[in-house]
Amino acid sequence: MSEDDRFGLDKGIRLMGPVKLDSGAELVPVDFAYESYGALNEARDNAILICHALTGDQYVASQHPATGKPGWWLNMVGPGKPLDTDRFCVICINVLGSCMGSSGPASINPATNNPYGMAFPVITIADMVRAQAILLDHLEIERLACVIGGSMGGMQALSWASLFPDRVKSAIVIASTARHSAQNIAFHEVGRQAIMADPNWQGGDYYGSDNSPAKGLAVARMAAHITYMSEEGLTGKFGRNLQDREAKSFGFDADFQVESYLRHQGSTFVDRFDANSYLYITRAMDYFDLAEAHNGVLAKAFSGSKTRFCLISFDSDWLYPTAESRRIVHALNAAGAAASFVELSSPFGHDAFLLETPEMNRVIAGFLSAGDIG
Amino acid sequence: MSEDDRFGLDKGIRLMGPVKLDSGAELVPVDFAYESYGALNEARDNAILICHALTGDQYVASQHPATGKPGWWLNMVGPGKPLDTDRFCVICINVLGSCMGSSGPASINPATNNPYGMAFPVITIADMVRAQAILLDHLEIERLACVIGGSMGGMQALSWASLFPDRVKSAIVIASTARHSAQNIAFHEVGRQAIMADPNWQGGDYYGSDNSPAKGLAVARMAAHITYMSEEGLTGKFGRNLQDREAKSFGFDADFQVESYLRHQGSTFVDRFDANSYLYITRAMDYFDLAEAHNGVLAKAFSGSKTRFCLISFDSDWLYPTAESRRIVHALNAAGAAASFVELSSPFGHDAFLLETPEMNRVIAGFLSAGDIG
Repeated sequence: MSEDDRFGLDKGIRLMGPVKLDSGAELVPVDFAYESYGALNEARDNAILICHALTGDQYVASQHPATGKPGWWLNMVGPGKPLDTDRFCVICINVLGSCMGSSGPASINPATNNPYGMAFPVITIADMVRAQAILLDHLEIERLACVIGGSMGGMQALSWASLFPDRVKSAIVIASTARHSAQNIAFHEVGRQAIMADPNWQGGDYYGSDNSPAKGLAVARMAAHITYMSEEGLTGKFGRNLQDREAKSFGFDADFQVESYLRHQGSTFVDRFDANSYLYITRAMDYFDLAEAHNGVLAKAFSGSKTRFCLISFDSDWLYPTAESRRIVHALNAAGAAASFVELSSPFGHDAFLLETPEMNRVIAGFLSAGDIG
Repeated sequence: MSEDDRFGLDKGIRLMGPVKLDSGAELVPVDFAYESYGALNEARDNAILICHALTGDQYVASQHPATGKPGWWLNMVGPGKPLDTDRFCVICINVLGSCMGSSGPASINPATNNPYGMAFPVITIADMVRAQAILLDHLEIERLACVIGGSMGGMQALSWASLFPDRVKSAIVIASTARHSAQNIAFHEVGRQAIMADPNWQGGDYYGSDNSPAKGLAVARMAAHITYMSEEGLTGKFGRNLQDREAKSFGFDADFQVESYLRHQGSTFVDRFDANSYLYITRAMDYFDLAEAHNGVLAKAFSGSKTRFCLISFDSDWLYPTAESRRIVHALNAAGAAASFVELSSPFGHDAFLLETPEMNRVIAGFLSAGDIG
């Protein structure tokens, strides 16, 4: 496969699709930015698709072009790692709506030859998955050995198994949910309002201007970031410790370490992410309710599924708590699907899935070694 | 007492203080806006001081002048109610730093004859309490039968008992904490950054201009409001129900009821609250750590206390969870103070203390009837 230039790092392709969207609109053309690690075998049946989270990207195990940081799942992907690139061809595609090369609101609208902005169609998690399927067709991968993802990546993995059951041999769903709760929607709405309240947002048409809604996006990121950590984790990491000072300033500087940390999270985020993409992807997540198309019966989303499922949750994750994973497992059981489930203990809240978590690595490696996967 | 015009509704007085602030600054003059309900007895020992929360005010049991709504604790204060105005003289004072008549950043700075803005000194919960003590001196109330408050009001009640043990016969502390956690600080910091990111904030000097940071303040309120409700409460009230529509709009309107509700919370809040006051009062709360002045030993804050304490928490309150009330009770026990504690069950999260909660009313009425109070 080494001569097949469809595979490798930093790949991009424009396909004509079209992607038929849940809104009724069609998206064409569709740009895909993606990376692959490890070789596809001759049977083309050893591919693992990693679905990334809200602000993630395809740079799973290679340096991020904007931040220079190592890949976000470097501890998971590579030779001898849980997603073993000696065995598997691991692929990650920047999701539709994002800003790292796949089609999104910053892409050129062929109808105007200007960036879409808010003319980009509102997309759903299912739309992201349908788009990915088009790229996999292009890569001539009919069936995935596994589709895996945490958080929004888990939503995509669930949707893959539901929309394309014959194409998914196994699915690993980490720290995720089958539907966004009222509280999930509420936090996202705060972020969207923060962006839209920034006058530099300019109704989404800021691409040609000198100003972008960086302040609004930073506030959105700060609010979201709190939900990614546990109260226990924040207390353990920061407590009420002061930042670079002996005493309170009696002012509005970042006196506390946790303030300084949050401000840093906000300000660095805006250097790597597009505010409109944040609007579109949070909207897709809020719209996510896998049971909705099945009269509210989640089990029906997996009727007759032959996919093997592995669910992982973290006990300190209050964004998508263990109860949400249990709901999914119950539905899979009711649908007669093979499902294993483990709740892992971690002080790090939702973000645990992104961190070095040896137990998670063992569970995933074990799941992929067992039976007939790959 | 009926002829004493220091008592009654919608009262205001300017006192020369000064209030000696924790920052080292002195505040002079100090304006106080307050209300009282029920008559002070001849012994002047039947007064109950209600301390209000972050965005609360003195209109406990009378119509709010800006919103026209009934008093925020009308179910608690009145003849025959738990804070029985046939027995007690119930007083509530707008806190220092607020915007309903007591001195705050919108007040005139005598040094410039312009509004203080960010030249207003940063204050603490203890400063609020010291100011209240000056007003009580003016009212010739040496000792309170009870000081009571929920949330930030509870912080003040604890501080009253700690700073002025001889002036506080009993204290009722509801849904509160003895110190702001890293997560508490983080949420407040998001709100402050949202306000300061609004160009209409203008460094706090917006009073003379046509614009105020309403959008930033609305975002701050939205983020905070989520923390006042439980996940369970939000799901029960809104779930994923759509707002005034049959299907998702595939746009960025408030499709979901919870979005519409949050936007409403944000937009109505800005009509009644000053953004700079929000900055100052959240700062005071973040600075709050009652044990700090006692080498981190909370019990020492109550050494030798003769005050009788009643602590109430709510099981669904994740802002100031029951564990925080337990910490206080343990400290009171260690200090040898008389303390009763009850955790009440409610689906309404932190805001339960503001709602009609019959069990809370019974606990408070019982506490005030028992023994020698009032």
